Amino acid sequence: MNCFNETSFADLDNVQLDLGRQARCGFPEVIFGEGKTKETILKIFRSMLEHGIDGFATRIDREKGAFLEQELTKQNYRYRYNPVARTFRLLHSINERETVSPVSGKIAVISAGTSDAPVAEEAYETALWTGAEVVFIQDVGIAGPHRLVANLPKFQNADTVIVVAGMEGALPSVVGGYVDCPVIAVPTSVGYGASFGGLAALLGMLNSCASNVSVVNIDAGFKAGYVAGLIAKKRTAK
Amino acid sequence: MNCFNETSFADLDNVQLDLGRQARCGFPEVIFGEGKTKETILKIFRSMLEHGIDGFATRIDREKGAFLEQELTKQNYRYRYNPVARTFRLLHSINERETVSPVSGKIAVISAGTSDAPVAEEAYETALWTGAEVVFIQDVGIAGPHRLVANLPKFQNADTVIVVAGMEGALPSVVGGYVDCPVIAVPTSVGYGASFGGLAALLGMLNSCASNVSVVNIDAGFKAGYVAGLIAKKRTAK
Amino acid sequence: MNCFNETSFADLDNVQLDLGRQARCGFPEVIFGEGKTKETILKIFRSMLEHGIDGFATRIDREKGAFLEQELTKQNYRYRYNPVARTFRLLHSINERETVSPVSGKIAVISAGTSDAPVAEEAYETALWTGAEVVFIQDVGIAGPHRLVANLPKFQNADTVIVVAGMEGALPSVVGGYVDCPVIAVPTSVGYGASFGGLAALLGMLNSCASNVSVVNIDAGFKAGYVAGLIAKKRTAK
Amino acid sequence: MNCFNETSFADLDNVQLDLGRQARCGFPEVIFGEGKTKETILKIFRSMLEHGIDGFATRIDREKGAFLEQELTKQNYRYRYNPVARTFRLLHSINERETVSPVSGKIAVISAGTSDAPVAEEAYETALWTGAEVVFIQDVGIAGPHRLVANLPKFQNADTVIVVAGMEGALPSVVGGYVDCPVIAVPTSVGYGASFGGLAALLGMLNSCASNVSVVNIDAGFKAGYVAGLIAKKRTAK
Amino acid sequence: MNCFNETSFADLDNVQLDLGRQARCGFPEVIFGEGKTKETILKIFRSMLEHGIDGFATRIDREKGAFLEQELTKQNYRYRYNPVARTFRLLHSINERETVSPVSGKIAVISAGTSDAPVAEEAYETALWTGAEVVFIQDVGIAGPHRLVANLPKFQNADTVIVVAGMEGALPSVVGGYVDCPVIAVPTSVGYGASFGGLAALLGMLNSCASNVSVVNIDAGFKAGYVAGLIAKKRTAK
Amino acid sequence: MNCFNETSFADLDNVQLDLGRQARCGFPEVIFGEGKTKETILKIFRSMLEHGIDGFATRIDREKGAFLEQELTKQNYRYRYNPVARTFRLLHSINERETVSPVSGKIAVISAGTSDAPVAEEAYETALWTGAEVVFIQDVGIAGPHRLVANLPKFQNADTVIVVAGMEGALPSVVGGYVDCPVIAVPTSVGYGASFGGLAALLGMLNSCASNVSVVNIDAGFKAGYVAGLIAKKRTAK
Amino acid sequence: MNCFNETSFADLDNVQLDLGRQARCGFPEVIFGEGKTKETILKIFRSMLEHGIDGFATRIDREKGAFLEQELTKQNYRYRYNPVARTFRLLHSINERETVSPVSGKIAVISAGTSDAPVAEEAYETALWTGAEVVFIQDVGIAGPHRLVANLPKFQNADTVIVVAGMEGALPSVVGGYVDCPVIAVPTSVGYGASFGGLAALLGMLNSCASNVSVVNIDAGFKAGYVAGLIAKKRTAK
Amino acid sequence: MNCFNETSFADLDNVQLDLGRQARCGFPEVIFGEGKTKETILKIFRSMLEHGIDGFATRIDREKGAFLEQELTKQNYRYRYNPVARTFRLLHSINERETVSPVSGKIAVISAGTSDAPVAEEAYETALWTGAEVVFIQDVGIAGPHRLVANLPKFQNADTVIVVAGMEGALPSVVGGYVDCPVIAVPTSVGYGASFGGLAALLGMLNSCASNVSVVNIDAGFKAGYVAGLIAKKRTAK
Repeated sequence: MNCFNETSFADLDNVQLDLGRQARCGFPEVIFGEGKTKETILKIFRSMLEHGIDGFATRIDREKGAFLEQELTKQNYRYRYNPVARTFRLLHSINERETVSPVSGKIAVISAGTSDAPVAEEAYETALWTGAEVVFIQDVGIAGPHRLVANLPKFQNADTVIVVAGMEGALPSVVGGYVDCPVIAVPTSVGYGASFGGLAALLGMLNSCASNVSVVNIDAGFKAGYVAGLIAKKRTAK
Repeated sequence: MNCFNETSFADLDNVQLDLGRQARCGFPEVIFGEGKTKETILKIFRSMLEHGIDGFATRIDREKGAFLEQELTKQNYRYRYNPVARTFRLLHSINERETVSPVSGKIAVISAGTSDAPVAEEAYETALWTGAEVVFIQDVGIAGPHRLVANLPKFQNADTVIVVAGMEGALPSVVGGYVDCPVIAVPTSVGYGASFGGLAALLGMLNSCASNVSVVNIDAGFKAGYVAGLIAKKRTAK
Repeated sequence: MNCFNETSFADLDNVQLDLGRQARCGFPEVIFGEGKTKETILKIFRSMLEHGIDGFATRIDREKGAFLEQELTKQNYRYRYNPVARTFRLLHSINERETVSPVSGKIAVISAGTSDAPVAEEAYETALWTGAEVVFIQDVGIAGPHRLVANLPKFQNADTVIVVAGMEGALPSVVGGYVDCPVIAVPTSVGYGASFGGLAALLGMLNSCASNVSVVNIDAGFKAGYVAGLIAKKRTAK
Repeated sequence: MNCFNETSFADLDNVQLDLGRQARCGFPEVIFGEGKTKETILKIFRSMLEHGIDGFATRIDREKGAFLEQELTKQNYRYRYNPVARTFRLLHSINERETVSPVSGKIAVISAGTSDAPVAEEAYETALWTGAEVVFIQDVGIAGPHRLVANLPKFQNADTVIVVAGMEGALPSVVGGYVDCPVIAVPTSVGYGASFGGLAALLGMLNSCASNVSVVNIDAGFKAGYVAGLIAKKRTAK
Repeated sequence: MNCFNETSFADLDNVQLDLGRQARCGFPEVIFGEGKTKETILKIFRSMLEHGIDGFATRIDREKGAFLEQELTKQNYRYRYNPVARTFRLLHSINERETVSPVSGKIAVISAGTSDAPVAEEAYETALWTGAEVVFIQDVGIAGPHRLVANLPKFQNADTVIVVAGMEGALPSVVGGYVDCPVIAVPTSVGYGASFGGLAALLGMLNSCASNVSVVNIDAGFKAGYVAGLIAKKRTAK
Repeated sequence: MNCFNETSFADLDNVQLDLGRQARCGFPEVIFGEGKTKETILKIFRSMLEHGIDGFATRIDREKGAFLEQELTKQNYRYRYNPVARTFRLLHSINERETVSPVSGKIAVISAGTSDAPVAEEAYETALWTGAEVVFIQDVGIAGPHRLVANLPKFQNADTVIVVAGMEGALPSVVGGYVDCPVIAVPTSVGYGASFGGLAALLGMLNSCASNVSVVNIDAGFKAGYVAGLIAKKRTAK
Repeated sequence: MNCFNETSFADLDNVQLDLGRQARCGFPEVIFGEGKTKETILKIFRSMLEHGIDGFATRIDREKGAFLEQELTKQNYRYRYNPVARTFRLLHSINERETVSPVSGKIAVISAGTSDAPVAEEAYETALWTGAEVVFIQDVGIAGPHRLVANLPKFQNADTVIVVAGMEGALPSVVGGYVDCPVIAVPTSVGYGASFGGLAALLGMLNSCASNVSVVNIDAGFKAGYVAGLIAKKRTAK
Repeated sequence: MNCFNETSFADLDNVQLDLGRQARCGFPEVIFGEGKTKETILKIFRSMLEHGIDGFATRIDREKGAFLEQELTKQNYRYRYNPVARTFRLLHSINERETVSPVSGKIAVISAGTSDAPVAEEAYETALWTGAEVVFIQDVGIAGPHRLVANLPKFQNADTVIVVAGMEGALPSVVGGYVDCPVIAVPTSVGYGASFGGLAALLGMLNSCASNVSVVNIDAGFKAGYVAGLIAKKRTAK
């Protein structure tokens, strides 16, 4: 389901490109790659480039990614493909540092374990795309309290913190006790048995006793990065 | 479970008052009134007043509220009790407008129906307590699309929007399509049959196709107001 | 499970063809293709053609579809196979326009996103088969409110509207607020994480605050089209 | 949650009366009585009477009902209160037969057992209010197949059939096999043990092998009656 | 999990053959084929034959079945393999009619649809193995009430009736209304969407309003046949 | 929901007394007392007595029971009221031993703990009413294996055993290993926490590794007694 | 359900007192007070005293507790009633310190919040009764990491740690990272909304990423104390 | 998710080897093999060997196992790979008997059926690795009570018993009644239908009426072995 197309559209056969979205919603349209063919995604990217939009796509598997890399390289377009995150980003109008300028705030992405990497990387790439400075801290799960404490200086001054965790999903509560900014919790489907595909982590995060924790869908790294980008942008808007 | 007490405490029998919380977490400690006696809550409030903290308590039913009003009035303390929201707030060190100054940002609280009032009012009072300017828009559920559109000017420039809804929980998605700020969705236990105590609304909100929606626990008006306050505070922090 | 065979049957080995169903239930028998071999389905189609029934089959995958196309083409039978909808329809006794005459009412099929296409197409083909005029509007999910409003003239005069949506399943409620006819909501298994295979959409639709919404099973495009056909037929019965 | 108020409203303090709903949605606004005070409901009724609308309210318990009867009797208003259905209907502009004229179609309401009466009666009263001729058949549960068959002549010519059942919720499937019109299934929370508050009946109805069955929420008698009224109205609309 | 081995065992490596089971529990031991290698199953069968037991195995897929057929044929053993039921039965000491003598009662196996065949056939083969006379009636689902009624003479004098159904699982209730013997309901995982792998059928059967219905696990055709065999045996025990 | 009334009825206002049930289904009609007034139940009993039926009613609480005792005593009717089982049985045409003659078979009722008594007693009374000889063994839960073994002689020769248990619901499996007759398992809602109102016991019983166990609804003592009666009756039928 | 009675019993009407349990299972029998009358409990206590057993009872509410206190005081028996824990313990043969001697090991009981007190106190009293030295640390929930760290010296040398928590149930994982002994996690039903009566905490604890955590039922303070007592006893057994 | 790394680490690219864990938590670090490449696991093992740690890894499938065997054999390292348990253990510094000396206590591992072998073997290997004497008893499910009793002498003197079972999960309760030590119950995902991936067994074990049973996650053989090792170690610690 393409939830990201909205109002005024460039009609690309059965895909309608929303050109006015950045003005209305803060960021340009994002392509949800699952269920779209690689040719369709390429066509959308080309239309975006024509309109001066450096597009961003999620759920781009390796086969689709290789195709896009090959085609866009032919035309000397610059891009950034992260196969773990499954994100593909056009960089044509962006400077060499691959970041927009000026930076719009600071986001920390923290993950509990290495198995959470795909979701955490998706959140990381999305947060980068929103123009924020992003700190990425991995593998600091709750069973190793000292590791998290050692990383405090890196994330305590962030505008918002994204915490990605599976299994019991307790890391956001612990992080929430150390910061004075909103924490966005992302449950992952990592685990087995009574994790029930991420349900245990989701329920844990919803019941967090830390007051500053809100939650997004299981494995929804993109949404966490997007909301974080909006918060960070607000901070530096003035 | 009192999750709000944290590190350095004034010992009040079996309650430990966290005096350093505002510095660490952005806001002073909040009292979760459920499961505490009215005498205990009064004792905590008095200790807070001694330390110059204008406390805030949630889940204060009418009987506890009446007792607190009577006792605090005797001592000429100013307060604000909202029996629908079940919140009780000390106002001793606050100016006559009952708002802190300068205002730290703008929050909109939107509810779907009149039955959602207790949760929406709790979010509203909490947001007020965080020092934000708060707009409160009630009874604009999804079945009446024109009503929401008519209220757009009131909330489109907010720093964040809290949306409170029961039953199918679709309102946050609709609101999310109109704003460029984070939307905090609060499912309520309002409904019957297959609403399963708010589960239907919760699942609907987690699966929202709007990218800017994050979710808190069922009936968690306080948490929504708290997170919103952190977002709004950030805006004017620099 | 073949629930469509009912009373007086032509015995085709272990399949019993219900010849009196149109008289009793309004429409001829429908073949549920899942779990039947392609040879069995062909045999049923041939028996139907002998009895002057232009049969309709659902859940016909591409391999079964190709076989049926090949065999029926050999014998100069006309048919309509929709591989996205996975429906196969005989058209032998039907005029060139491929619609029955006179048209028996008007049905609108509305889908939230492109991923919902298989279910929406199944509903569309079934509605066509019932003899109704059918309007098909795709990709107008709730995150893009303007798109739905732009399509209002196309569906507001329908006898009934089928709304197909996954994820949070909120579209039927929004559509329900714009029309004075029954809305048949079809949840789809499209989504991830806490969508739990369509459960979130199903619960959302059951809890719709729009009074004119009833619901069918997850992914049950056929049933929605069938019920819509009965409603539309009632409308023009006199 | 009041989902029935929609666009143009008479402002009654915190209640907004939708005066244009009949034109837009086919029927005048309905008051959901749960969570409203008796005084508020009376005020809405009076405003309706001023605007020439014969209002209809659901979820009116005996205490609210007695109050409304007393107040409306004082002013010589005519009404119809059904304490089992918990519905209250104004009849001021309606003729002595208590039905609108001309009748708009025929609806059958069938219930499985006597315990389902409150839900079945709510469906019955709502169907009556929509102006349809309504046949009410009670206590013909699936365990007594002969009883249902004996009643066939009463409901086989209906425009639509509402079937109300708890426990295993199998009655709609059985009824669906006998009629050529849409069947609206209403699961009830009647049962114990593994009925899980109506969940068993709900799932049974959603999985019905009869093609003509759609479903509404558990205990949603009003919604079933409303949808049935829309179907029956269609029939004679042209 | 091999739950069928019990007390005194012939030790076959890691499998322990229960030789005294028939005396203690009424029937000889049954081999649950899932999770056992074909060689292990063959070894158990050989040991059974040595002890004069005509074994019975369930969950024997086609590959294991072919191997057993080949090996047992080499040694001139007689057997009965039903690849749909996935059952394999030794017949060495059984007469040509492949039934034990005298017949120990009458069991009817009734299935709702053709997709239920694997479970229904497993129940059928198990019932045969217990020595009962077995009537097998397929494809008489609830949507076709006339078909069931037409088959009444075949099953009304049975000692017990096994009813196999997926989807809404309503058939046992209907059958239960026609007979004066116990009905054993077997929910199957046939269905889609809200059938949740047979959960809907299971709940429907547990909530059956027919007093004579008890239930076994989803897809547990073997257990239904086994219990039915015990009941039928009891009937003719004297 | 009155599931027990079926075909030919004596019309008692809104209750229809099934007079031909014993012939058709093996036992006379049973009154489900929940949701019926005490006056209605008395009226049904009187009608039964007029037709020579010694009626049986379940779910008769102490208030209804006292009323029925008082009224029936006035008229010198004999009855048996078990307030723990909540069953009320007319004994007018029955001999002094309060059992029908000849006894039709033997049923054992076994319960795990004293808290299961209401369900176990309901099963016991129902089994008695079916005319069987009934052995009642209480408080032999799985944690005390020796107690069950000590009672083996009492139930090993039964025609069927009813096992009533809450919590983990393991007792039926254990009993099943000792007998060569069908075991009817009744889960109860006894327990706390993760027993989820009897769900844990229900799932445990459905997954029993004993082949001779079938299951009825949570707390369904009546249904277990009824099915057991049918099995025991069969035994001596020929 | 009385699961604690087991083999050799003193017969007290319908209660059977297990006199040999201490020898067989390590501790004397425990009385589960729920569902037993106060008179029955008194009778069991008296029988225990006659046999020299200092009994222990759980789930003794204030009314039963007051009765037992009154009756046992009359006879100069010593006891310890904890109305928060709802435990009642006889102390007749125990020395003045109310602890057995020598102490059998060390147990720590840690609770997340004050609302968890009833469960934590039950665990505490049970652990005391097993003869262990018990440290009780309350109100150190995960949101206040410094409080737990400050208490480390108190519990790091325990033989086992019981951790009681509701809401997200994350405390056992955090504690597990600090100790080299088994952690017994007790989820409580404390929370609201998506805590679903303790389910969220239960799932969180089962999915704990700490290797040394095992779990007992929701609110099962007694069982946690009992298991902890067995572990502590082992430590000093040699 | 690697939950086992904790504080002071040897940095191996993105893996951090915890060298101080044995001192802090009682046992050296364990490698969770799922989601790690075979090269990464080899690198960790080599680093462990350099630091004199005989590592232990779980979830090592046959392909990873073969690679590790080949590589470690080249370097003359000794190891123990159990492909059923999916565990791989280095034995370099361990004596010929492959057990540490002195033995730290006695653990019994009991499984219900052969299908539970992978989980039971994982528990067995883990328990061995902790240095305990381990007794392994397989295939003694609850349906065969005599088999368990026959094995009593083998496990009644254990310091703790691990019980592994799927389906109804009743075996731990039965075992619990025979021993005076803690029982650690491991539900497995073995079963079908209403076992719901081990949920039935999990709920059964949590609701065990035996007081000495605690539970770990579904299929969590490692965790059971680890906790058991901690308990057994305690026994001989003094």
